Amino acid sequence: MPNPNAAMLVIGDEILSGRTRDANMHHLAGVLTERGIDLREVRIVSDDHKAIVAAVRALSRAYDHVFTSGGIGPTHDDITADAVAEAMGAAIDVRDDARALLEAHYARLDQELNAARMRMARIPDGAALIDNPISAAPGFTIGNVHVMAGVPTIFQAMVDSLIPRLTGGVPLVSATVRIKRGEGDIAAPLGDLSRAYPDLRFGSYPFIREGVFGSNIVIRGSDAGQVDAAEQELRALFPGAAT
Amino acid sequence: MPNPNAAMLVIGDEILSGRTRDANMHHLAGVLTERGIDLREVRIVSDDHKAIVAAVRALSRAYDHVFTSGGIGPTHDDITADAVAEAMGAAIDVRDDARALLEAHYARLDQELNAARMRMARIPDGAALIDNPISAAPGFTIGNVHVMAGVPTIFQAMVDSLIPRLTGGVPLVSATVRIKRGEGDIAAPLGDLSRAYPDLRFGSYPFIREGVFGSNIVIRGSDAGQVDAAEQELRALFPGAAT
Repeated sequence: MPNPNAAMLVIGDEILSGRTRDANMHHLAGVLTERGIDLREVRIVSDDHKAIVAAVRALSRAYDHVFTSGGIGPTHDDITADAVAEAMGAAIDVRDDARALLEAHYARLDQELNAARMRMARIPDGAALIDNPISAAPGFTIGNVHVMAGVPTIFQAMVDSLIPRLTGGVPLVSATVRIKRGEGDIAAPLGDLSRAYPDLRFGSYPFIREGVFGSNIVIRGSDAGQVDAAEQELRALFPGAAT
Repeated sequence: MPNPNAAMLVIGDEILSGRTRDANMHHLAGVLTERGIDLREVRIVSDDHKAIVAAVRALSRAYDHVFTSGGIGPTHDDITADAVAEAMGAAIDVRDDARALLEAHYARLDQELNAARMRMARIPDGAALIDNPISAAPGFTIGNVHVMAGVPTIFQAMVDSLIPRLTGGVPLVSATVRIKRGEGDIAAPLGDLSRAYPDLRFGSYPFIREGVFGSNIVIRGSDAGQVDAAEQELRALFPGAAT
């Protein structure tokens, strides 16, 4: 059986404006790879209701799982929960279970659970909550869409509570060979090798360091023996240049 | 007239597997913001012909400009040029102008222009070349799609030669106010402020530092006077907490 596949939707103007560099994508990509869930696509959209609805609909239909980050806080630009509800055809309102989590949290901190914070208890009908051990306001799963916070520490905590619930696949193993040769010298033998191992994927990631062209060749597959054999063949093709 | 808008398409398995962190998106986002071109969406897809064709078609129709990075080198996994040609309905083959650039480059280096390297001269009919001062193999513009390399130094050099050709808009100016208060305390006055300045965008980007919750409020707009006035009002709302 093929591994489950997935897409991620990052919601937030701050990445599109170049103000911040996304960290959640890189984290999720690593976790999913370990779990044997293939991340096939990432989209980043701004805090725009229509854009979020359209992206959630498209990705939810095309992939086994969709993971979102961002836009579930208490401020006016936090519109993800309502957009996801619309995309999935679900009603949304303050839900008692989410409200109870927030009441307990803010009572403990002796802070007011005001109207803005109460917006974080808006959860679509039929959704399962995702635990937030840091600031209580939960994420949620509706259908195959998993909605999580954008703050990296909270996103990572939510991923930690969500991932064990999901059925994984066969984790990919990989080997990297760094070759100090231009890609143009590597291309033909690498193409031959990739045809000799049709179950593996060979990626070539060129670099320039101190004026020298080279490439990191990454071999990926689910069979560690095959990956190892291909790695040895590749190293033998470039004696002295491969590290 | 509204600013031109744009999308970016990042092509490459290495980001989706969590192996590398994308740098080109962050760079392009900053450059476009300065130039007054609004980056509205980013997609990341793997080295998969169908996925690239579908994404280029969708983004090319939806936005004024599409910028791609990755997949135009000499190895078997470099399939972007052919996929873009298909998406834009253009024929593609080795083109004389691109071949001449490669011939001159490899003659200068006293290296062989082999079959693999010659693939980098495959350019769709009707495309305009984008200069590559680092390794000669050009990017290209076809219709509203700008195809560039994935290696960050080459990507940045191509962006430098491309951007002056494009009509820009009014650059956004922004102000950031760091407020050491939970977003739940900021949300109501911030919402009021955003309604008082309908031409500005107010983003709230929460953080947790040493156990303290706070948020960076970013005010963006094309009118520097309005941004400044809104910033002063916001600071006055949180005396002592805003830095």
